[in-house]
Amino acid sequence: MKQGRFITMEGVDGSGKTTQLQLTARYLLDCGYDVVTTREPGGTKMAERIRGLVLDADAAINARTEVMLYLAARAEHVETVIKPALAAGKVVLCDRFADSTLVYQGYVRGIEIAKVKALCAFAADSLQPELTILLDAAPEALLQRRADRGVRDRFEQEGLDFQKKVREGFLSLANSEPDRIKKVNALQNTEAVQADIQKLLKEAGF
Amino acid sequence: MKQGRFITMEGVDGSGKTTQLQLTARYLLDCGYDVVTTREPGGTKMAERIRGLVLDADAAINARTEVMLYLAARAEHVETVIKPALAAGKVVLCDRFADSTLVYQGYVRGIEIAKVKALCAFAADSLQPELTILLDAAPEALLQRRADRGVRDRFEQEGLDFQKKVREGFLSLANSEPDRIKKVNALQNTEAVQADIQKLLKEAGF
Repeated sequence: MKQGRFITMEGVDGSGKTTQLQLTARYLLDCGYDVVTTREPGGTKMAERIRGLVLDADAAINARTEVMLYLAARAEHVETVIKPALAAGKVVLCDRFADSTLVYQGYVRGIEIAKVKALCAFAADSLQPELTILLDAAPEALLQRRADRGVRDRFEQEGLDFQKKVREGFLSLANSEPDRIKKVNALQNTEAVQADIQKLLKEAGF
Repeated sequence: MKQGRFITMEGVDGSGKTTQLQLTARYLLDCGYDVVTTREPGGTKMAERIRGLVLDADAAINARTEVMLYLAARAEHVETVIKPALAAGKVVLCDRFADSTLVYQGYVRGIEIAKVKALCAFAADSLQPELTILLDAAPEALLQRRADRGVRDRFEQEGLDFQKKVREGFLSLANSEPDRIKKVNALQNTEAVQADIQKLLKEAGF
């Protein structure tokens, strides 16, 4: 039986992850692969309920509670969606995974990175993507691009300093794991970004 | 400013924890201490909602999801109830804490003990009880005692083998941390159990 392959896509909000994930799935389908696209918190009923809990919190939820709730959802997502798809020989394309937890809960909220890593490994039963595509762009430039298009959304609400910190986190991770995490310039047009992604997939043997 | 003191009570279902916790609180109050009694999952709104999620699960929830949900509730409980009470110089008496997680999620559900310990330490921000009272009794004897009183409840539903495994887990923990975890024979009458607990409290400087 063939074993599936696990790929994740990461990046700040507004970097084009959703569009590129869909284009990438279509490309891999055209190449003849069975593809499953999924996203954190995972599309399972339990995971959505956990996410609802985090978002509903009246008061500021403490950082340790938050990360454990997200990782409970991760454990469910891995067990009920990702692992079965990989066992069936499929390519799993996931919008955000452990790297987002490391960046948002570690770098940004300040929980010690080594601890977040250990928690992530536990939640995912040590499952790791073989390839992570990081859609990278300076938040200032993304903000300008969105302003040009008249888009006002969460990206702006979170604030530029927040998005800069997120980007720094992702870049730091990419530097520490250059074999797995591959940067793509997200400020190019959609086709050019997708071409870069397809090049990375070919290099990875797809 | 005086610093509070943290005491937990552990044991299998039916060992008399609830009764002894109340009696112990009354005793400490009579000694002049400010006492807070609390219980896992913690009495906070968020913690209760998390517990609801675990109990509502349609399907068998996977062990890693379950332990992370319980520990998310623990983190909330520690942060919003236990730490503030200790900071205010109170004695906190808690019905079940990390030792229950180690026993039920580790020994019984089979998650590696070292991993559960690390998760518990993270969730509790390394807070540990200075004294843990383990109400110990052979499950067969507790079952007989309950049958004599006409009680039929969760203790029986879970099955004797389950309760035996839980007891073994608690005894193993008590052997590994004899300075913190003190065993009390839970098959004695209520007054004798409480007398033993008060003796332990006196030895601990209360």
